[in-house]
Amino acid sequence: MSALKFEVTAQDGSARAGLLHTPHGVVKTPVFAPVGTQATVKALTPLQLQELGASLILANSYHLHLRPGDETIANLGGLHQFMSWNGPILTDSGGFQVFSLAKRRQLDADGVTFQSHLDGSEHRFTPESVVEIQENLGADIIMTLDECPQPYDREYNQHALRRTHSWAERCLAAKSRSDQALFGIVQGGVFPDLREQSAAFIASLDFPGIAIGGLSVGETPNEMHAMIEVVNAVLPADRPRYLMGVGAPNDLVECVLRGVDMFDCVLPTRLARNHTALTRLGRLNLRNSPFVDDQRPIDGTCTCYTCRTFSRAYIRHLCTAKEMLAATLLSIHNIQTLTTLVGDLRQAIADAKLEDFAADFLANYRKHRSPEI
Amino acid sequence: MSALKFEVTAQDGSARAGLLHTPHGVVKTPVFAPVGTQATVKALTPLQLQELGASLILANSYHLHLRPGDETIANLGGLHQFMSWNGPILTDSGGFQVFSLAKRRQLDADGVTFQSHLDGSEHRFTPESVVEIQENLGADIIMTLDECPQPYDREYNQHALRRTHSWAERCLAAKSRSDQALFGIVQGGVFPDLREQSAAFIASLDFPGIAIGGLSVGETPNEMHAMIEVVNAVLPADRPRYLMGVGAPNDLVECVLRGVDMFDCVLPTRLARNHTALTRLGRLNLRNSPFVDDQRPIDGTCTCYTCRTFSRAYIRHLCTAKEMLAATLLSIHNIQTLTTLVGDLRQAIADAKLEDFAADFLANYRKHRSPEI
Repeated sequence: MSALKFEVTAQDGSARAGLLHTPHGVVKTPVFAPVGTQATVKALTPLQLQELGASLILANSYHLHLRPGDETIANLGGLHQFMSWNGPILTDSGGFQVFSLAKRRQLDADGVTFQSHLDGSEHRFTPESVVEIQENLGADIIMTLDECPQPYDREYNQHALRRTHSWAERCLAAKSRSDQALFGIVQGGVFPDLREQSAAFIASLDFPGIAIGGLSVGETPNEMHAMIEVVNAVLPADRPRYLMGVGAPNDLVECVLRGVDMFDCVLPTRLARNHTALTRLGRLNLRNSPFVDDQRPIDGTCTCYTCRTFSRAYIRHLCTAKEMLAATLLSIHNIQTLTTLVGDLRQAIADAKLEDFAADFLANYRKHRSPEI
Repeated sequence: MSALKFEVTAQDGSARAGLLHTPHGVVKTPVFAPVGTQATVKALTPLQLQELGASLILANSYHLHLRPGDETIANLGGLHQFMSWNGPILTDSGGFQVFSLAKRRQLDADGVTFQSHLDGSEHRFTPESVVEIQENLGADIIMTLDECPQPYDREYNQHALRRTHSWAERCLAAKSRSDQALFGIVQGGVFPDLREQSAAFIASLDFPGIAIGGLSVGETPNEMHAMIEVVNAVLPADRPRYLMGVGAPNDLVECVLRGVDMFDCVLPTRLARNHTALTRLGRLNLRNSPFVDDQRPIDGTCTCYTCRTFSRAYIRHLCTAKEMLAATLLSIHNIQTLTTLVGDLRQAIADAKLEDFAADFLANYRKHRSPEI
């Protein structure tokens, strides 16, 4: 556990602000981690990422194992050196991608065999092999192999939970590097008793941080919130809580309120590539025709390079002309929106004003914002 | 002519170093101008462009007239404000694109009618209308409408030359903004007498700078060099000479030797999107498998962000994984290679050592460089 130290610096209701000390620097929590699937946060240089306040970033073991190969990255000095990101990195185990992306997967108690989505080649992940892959990659935070089932099938979830828990123990036993922190993952679908049971089991193991998996996969917001409440009531207060795959602004607010410390999501960069800006009032589709002569920045309150420099009209032009710069400028803005938001949440917690902040925020937030605003 | 002042600061043989004073800053010549076809140098922010030493950039009237429209850009404050580039900008007349890109064009003495390559809509360019379009865009340097014929058809070139010359006079008469410099264009295919005649005619008009058009369109290097020598022997020494559409490193050296001051080309950014690096020894295709574990930068002598920060192995990974960042990092490197090269040519002229510099450079340059180097 020496690779990671978590310090809670303020509390406000269930919410916490903290500091996560990693071998590559300190992460202020709550934190939003942009996703660099293939060892690059799409369309951004590491320098741009750093300038817009990203601290922790995520990379995907599944993708990097397939291409260029985790051993290749190890031989090149590890992921930090490979992608020139000197800040903290988290890698997932690859389990989620095996279940969502790979072809013809076959699960057994020992692991999962699957075909690469790239070339159909056969691969096998076991708890031990995903730890080895992640030790080759060398991220600061690594994740256990888990099974991520559909959230509504109780019997399947019960079964999957046993496997996820056994795999968690095996990952812990397989781990050999002292400069990496291995996080366990709580599963259990939308079933409070399974979630409670999973949280208790994972918390009983020697994980310096704990993730909540299998949410934001089709369940309702109320179900998601309920599961987070159940789990966080069980998890020890002195370890960071990481909600995997969640990144919409309203979700960040709702889940920080409920005690989550860490988030990651492809949302800001994926929306950017689809011409959509995240703002604190909702999403804007920059291809909309009212923007053709709109001289305002995307968000007048935003301090990012994009909003300091470019009009909506220019960004709309880049989108309609299919220029790569559109994705870059919107990614900068979208990530900045989320890093600023978690920073403001952190401040509100320190000021013991989170409830008011959250109520205000959520009252103004609409998923899709009108172009006129 | 007050919008532009050209100062020759050093001469070495036929080559010159100079300063081009524009309303948006001073350009040191020889200069290579990256191309921002649709008001963006593809895959780069203006900040990145500035950091890698770009001074003058080019934008295309044809593209911007069709989308988003030159009047729209005028209403948004002009091209500098629209694309947030506060340095000097040059726009071409759109003529070259009408001849290379538009559909179903019909030429007459008065202008050219064509269909947009985007939606088939009908448009017409005349000498007067391309000046108006470029006045709407508001670049520092604007270009006359010219006809760019196949280089080997003498009769057609003779005919086209009359039209190009008549259009040059009409553009000059149509020009109304005093803060823009209009350059004339010399044509004449590969025929020395036509080139000489065209240079003499264009030089006789009141253009503060003169371009050489219709080269690098299929003729041999020797033919290109011969045409430049013929033209530059006629052009007045006190006006800048701009060779349109040329940007390969060896061509820059050869043509600066022959008295050219300004260049533009899509080559560095187009090659970047095709995974190819320009270096002073030749091109490298970064997808080549020997690069998979090559920890060296693309070019150990290059000072660009890409070469300071990333290995060939990482860039190869980005290329094979089809990541946008590949185009950004290679564009940075390729443009830096050319801006550094023209800077070194400038210095060699100031030191009166251009002949040695050029001989050395050309002796080491191979179009396609071996991956092992």
